[in-house]
Amino acid sequence: MSTPLIGIIMGSNSDYPVMQQAEQFLQQFSIPYEIRVVSAHRTPDIMFEYAENARARGLKAIIAGAGGAAHLPGMVAAKTTVPVLGVPVPSKYLRGEDSLLSIVQMPKGVPVATFAIGEAGAANAALFAISLLANDNPELAQKLADFRENQKQSVLNMDLPSQPA
Amino acid sequence: MSTPLIGIIMGSNSDYPVMQQAEQFLQQFSIPYEIRVVSAHRTPDIMFEYAENARARGLKAIIAGAGGAAHLPGMVAAKTTVPVLGVPVPSKYLRGEDSLLSIVQMPKGVPVATFAIGEAGAANAALFAISLLANDNPELAQKLADFRENQKQSVLNMDLPSQPA
Amino acid sequence: MSTPLIGIIMGSNSDYPVMQQAEQFLQQFSIPYEIRVVSAHRTPDIMFEYAENARARGLKAIIAGAGGAAHLPGMVAAKTTVPVLGVPVPSKYLRGEDSLLSIVQMPKGVPVATFAIGEAGAANAALFAISLLANDNPELAQKLADFRENQKQSVLNMDLPSQPA
Amino acid sequence: MSTPLIGIIMGSNSDYPVMQQAEQFLQQFSIPYEIRVVSAHRTPDIMFEYAENARARGLKAIIAGAGGAAHLPGMVAAKTTVPVLGVPVPSKYLRGEDSLLSIVQMPKGVPVATFAIGEAGAANAALFAISLLANDNPELAQKLADFRENQKQSVLNMDLPSQPA
Amino acid sequence: MSTPLIGIIMGSNSDYPVMQQAEQFLQQFSIPYEIRVVSAHRTPDIMFEYAENARARGLKAIIAGAGGAAHLPGMVAAKTTVPVLGVPVPSKYLRGEDSLLSIVQMPKGVPVATFAIGEAGAANAALFAISLLANDNPELAQKLADFRENQKQSVLNMDLPSQPA
Amino acid sequence: MSTPLIGIIMGSNSDYPVMQQAEQFLQQFSIPYEIRVVSAHRTPDIMFEYAENARARGLKAIIAGAGGAAHLPGMVAAKTTVPVLGVPVPSKYLRGEDSLLSIVQMPKGVPVATFAIGEAGAANAALFAISLLANDNPELAQKLADFRENQKQSVLNMDLPSQPA
Amino acid sequence: MSTPLIGIIMGSNSDYPVMQQAEQFLQQFSIPYEIRVVSAHRTPDIMFEYAENARARGLKAIIAGAGGAAHLPGMVAAKTTVPVLGVPVPSKYLRGEDSLLSIVQMPKGVPVATFAIGEAGAANAALFAISLLANDNPELAQKLADFRENQKQSVLNMDLPSQPA
Amino acid sequence: MSTPLIGIIMGSNSDYPVMQQAEQFLQQFSIPYEIRVVSAHRTPDIMFEYAENARARGLKAIIAGAGGAAHLPGMVAAKTTVPVLGVPVPSKYLRGEDSLLSIVQMPKGVPVATFAIGEAGAANAALFAISLLANDNPELAQKLADFRENQKQSVLNMDLPSQPA
Repeated sequence: MSTPLIGIIMGSNSDYPVMQQAEQFLQQFSIPYEIRVVSAHRTPDIMFEYAENARARGLKAIIAGAGGAAHLPGMVAAKTTVPVLGVPVPSKYLRGEDSLLSIVQMPKGVPVATFAIGEAGAANAALFAISLLANDNPELAQKLADFRENQKQSVLNMDLPSQPA
Repeated sequence: MSTPLIGIIMGSNSDYPVMQQAEQFLQQFSIPYEIRVVSAHRTPDIMFEYAENARARGLKAIIAGAGGAAHLPGMVAAKTTVPVLGVPVPSKYLRGEDSLLSIVQMPKGVPVATFAIGEAGAANAALFAISLLANDNPELAQKLADFRENQKQSVLNMDLPSQPA
Repeated sequence: MSTPLIGIIMGSNSDYPVMQQAEQFLQQFSIPYEIRVVSAHRTPDIMFEYAENARARGLKAIIAGAGGAAHLPGMVAAKTTVPVLGVPVPSKYLRGEDSLLSIVQMPKGVPVATFAIGEAGAANAALFAISLLANDNPELAQKLADFRENQKQSVLNMDLPSQPA
Repeated sequence: MSTPLIGIIMGSNSDYPVMQQAEQFLQQFSIPYEIRVVSAHRTPDIMFEYAENARARGLKAIIAGAGGAAHLPGMVAAKTTVPVLGVPVPSKYLRGEDSLLSIVQMPKGVPVATFAIGEAGAANAALFAISLLANDNPELAQKLADFRENQKQSVLNMDLPSQPA
Repeated sequence: MSTPLIGIIMGSNSDYPVMQQAEQFLQQFSIPYEIRVVSAHRTPDIMFEYAENARARGLKAIIAGAGGAAHLPGMVAAKTTVPVLGVPVPSKYLRGEDSLLSIVQMPKGVPVATFAIGEAGAANAALFAISLLANDNPELAQKLADFRENQKQSVLNMDLPSQPA
Repeated sequence: MSTPLIGIIMGSNSDYPVMQQAEQFLQQFSIPYEIRVVSAHRTPDIMFEYAENARARGLKAIIAGAGGAAHLPGMVAAKTTVPVLGVPVPSKYLRGEDSLLSIVQMPKGVPVATFAIGEAGAANAALFAISLLANDNPELAQKLADFRENQKQSVLNMDLPSQPA
Repeated sequence: MSTPLIGIIMGSNSDYPVMQQAEQFLQQFSIPYEIRVVSAHRTPDIMFEYAENARARGLKAIIAGAGGAAHLPGMVAAKTTVPVLGVPVPSKYLRGEDSLLSIVQMPKGVPVATFAIGEAGAANAALFAISLLANDNPELAQKLADFRENQKQSVLNMDLPSQPA
Repeated sequence: MSTPLIGIIMGSNSDYPVMQQAEQFLQQFSIPYEIRVVSAHRTPDIMFEYAENARARGLKAIIAGAGGAAHLPGMVAAKTTVPVLGVPVPSKYLRGEDSLLSIVQMPKGVPVATFAIGEAGAANAALFAISLLANDNPELAQKLADFRENQKQSVLNMDLPSQPA
């Protein structure tokens, strides 16, 4: 088992259906990662400890998903200079608008890279993390380029049921 | 100097013009208080320490003002069971809508009592803190009732420039 | 039966599925409470009477849930200096955005402590009310601390279905 | 001095710059009216008394302006069956979005007729009140028709600085 | 069959499930009314004709429901001085926020009395129309007062499943 | 098979249920068209090529549907002076509010004609494209007039289940 | 003086500072046009007459600007099959969000091509109208292409004050 | 002069007052960078060329600022696998809400890391870019840690004008 390069954390296991989109891409690209539940509000000390040790443990990016008053990404970012990627998890009544604003509107000085609400955001956070690693890994950069090419092909192969005369 | 019963904290001294509304009411009601800058993102450890010691230091409520991705009230609440009152400070572009949602949409288990955006919210957080103290202090309850009565009188004394025939 | 310390009121029995989250926490912490339907718009006089008598009847906090043009918490607060905790009940079309703004945007002078939209908000209003009582009740403060500790443990025990290699 | 047919009320004299738009139209149409400050939150009993006596005092409509958590129109409506017209006064940070939702989203059973945010809404509330009176007053109906005709002429007389070739 | 006093119109028969709430109250109060589909965008001339003849035909108020870019209430109001009551019908994607703003934000000079989004708004538009008629009809005013009293009783009779100890 | 006059493009085949509303109207009016998947983000070069060749290929308008961060219509418009009609496809969490703003808020200099969110917008984009062609085609203009007349008749034929006494 | 091909209309001369952006582009491209104030709510009959005669008078497009409950573009579109381009004029309190939704959310069957809020939208409506005319006018199409080329050059010529080392 | 590691691009020089916040941090940390105007809509080919060559030219991240229908970050991301950081520039009427949604709501497969609206977002995009470089540069990581420490000290040094008794 390799030392994890990317950490995926989320405030509750109820966030997993969204966050597994991130996990799947890390698996697909064979990136060593770890994944666990860390709650800003219920396990604040563990969150701080996780963030404080991130650089020493070799993490190159932390993907943090949270919903509602989503404080996990921003508070982790407050305790580490390892890049933090925030994923707004959809909330029950406001569908993630609260999550998005709580994550993206960070004050000057403590950045959180924010992605789209929900599954697309989780997937893209992982792809973005991979692009960070690819900066110094030509093989991985090539894999990303191949992924983009495949993506293009899948669009080209899309059929529409219509048949204009 | 009395031991402070209420702590007012804010993420930056730029929040003071809003938060001084809280301070003024505590002064008006002669409530011992303390006031300081504590930043969730720039002084996270000090924030945690502040929250952790709040009960032992005798604080009966903490009024926390913050803007944008406003994590201060919620993270303080995560580290203490002393009542936390959140004041959404207006943000530059979204005028406090982000601050409000970041503060009020706390997950089940860690409450933050939230007040209106801006000056009114800061004032009301102080009045609410006073009402907590008044629960066991009939004199203070009477002062609050008097304040309400004065408020009523000031409305009754409002003149309108119009003069219907 | 003890004299109730906390009153839970709501505008309609259709709000009960949300507001019972508050009730459950008061029961769990063995807090004497009362619960009833009081409508700002349909029983305004009863609402005023309820608010006026709250302090004399020994209530230490009133948890008021309402949806849409949610006037119940603010109008109760206008008639008492007992702390009022407002819970925005989700509305049919605007999902509680109207309820939230109608409750939280109180003018300077009459505070309502506002919590999250829906179930989480109802639960947290109760926990907040308990924290008020805990200010002068070390045993209750300890119970709250235990509750937080249990909450932490439940997060630590959360399993994720994934298995990073 | 005639008995007032229309009552204009507002939560604070700071609302007068908006609400005077209503007053001006009542004056222009020579409708007997009264105007005063009545605050839902600071003078709740006076508000109830005002509403309760409205029908007996001969009021045919009540124009109520309020901002933020704007409870005045809805609470007056809860205490009278005289038609209540609500005017959302712009708020400092949310520019009247909160006022609008707090007024218009009334529950089934207690109607408030709501108008636009700000000056246009105040003016239109008055014109609407006049249209109510005009239902049984052909002369007033004619005056309204004349007003509309004048309005049309003022549009026809509008010059634009441009000069297409 | 009596001459209708109230006209209910809507842009499409798909609006009927909402607008029948208005109809039911008119029936319950035995108010002579008419109800029909009139579309601002698909039958604009019929809409204008309807509005132009409203006063001569004896209508005392027009309840107009529409969704999305909801132009029906405002355009009817542009063509008559009979009071127009607008009901924002929920739209598919924006749930009536577009309908509400399209109806309520009328410019100075042409008022539309606006009610809540959806069923509650339709019901309240009818109750408001009844209150207009009640201004000169003591018997109807009494019926409205009775309705309010019944409404109060129904709240008093609401049971909650909970049983505080 | 005629040379297509109108191109319908969309970012994914998952947009087809919405965009087929456009297709159906083009078929109904016998307008030669083409329809295909072109993705701004996954096939950017093909998108540019498509836009660059549009005028030479004889397209008179391009209908482009996209959701979320909807860049397709605007980027096509950046690469052609053929009229581009944008259709905001509803997004999973924000229901097309993001799509609408991403399409309509184009900077000065590169126009995109924007239509309603979802099916209505797709249908109307096609009807608008037909109206462009009808500018120089009196027969088509007549067909459009007939369509409007039929639409009017269908409204006139709408029955309501109610039966006022 | 040529017969106008494009009509610019607006609800009030207060809309002219925004709508003159449209006028300037028509002048720059030497497109014969007309410009006048036509109000949906204050001159509804004139609006209908204007729309009804548009095709016979040779108009190829109508640019209609309106703010708030912006009914002008949609109601003109209801009365003509000439392409209607809507420009949301910023409103005082909601900054054009109401204008945008009132214009863009048209129901299926009556299209309005909508552009950005304010000056950019007015400019782009004119450029879009020019692109319609260019469909059958190669010289005009070339002029549009030149305009785009100039626009590109102006971007290339933009200096930034910074000077990276 | 070093080869630039970070590219800062923006849609117009009017975005520079916001984007210079990014530049200043890159200068402060002595990161080789380039800065230029590249417009998605006015210079689309140059944008594509810029993105296509980014990796070969050695860029490790691209910071792209844009407002309104902000397509620049997403379209650059569509043409490169180099990490793209998007900064929502405030727009005239919607204050950057449109910019934010146009940038952050990217579809699955093409990530854009998004930061706060305006100056704070530009600053944080730069700090985030620096944190990427710091992953393989311990000296830079130390500089970032020092920056955080200084930031903490500046908070600790903040004085408040108040003086609780």
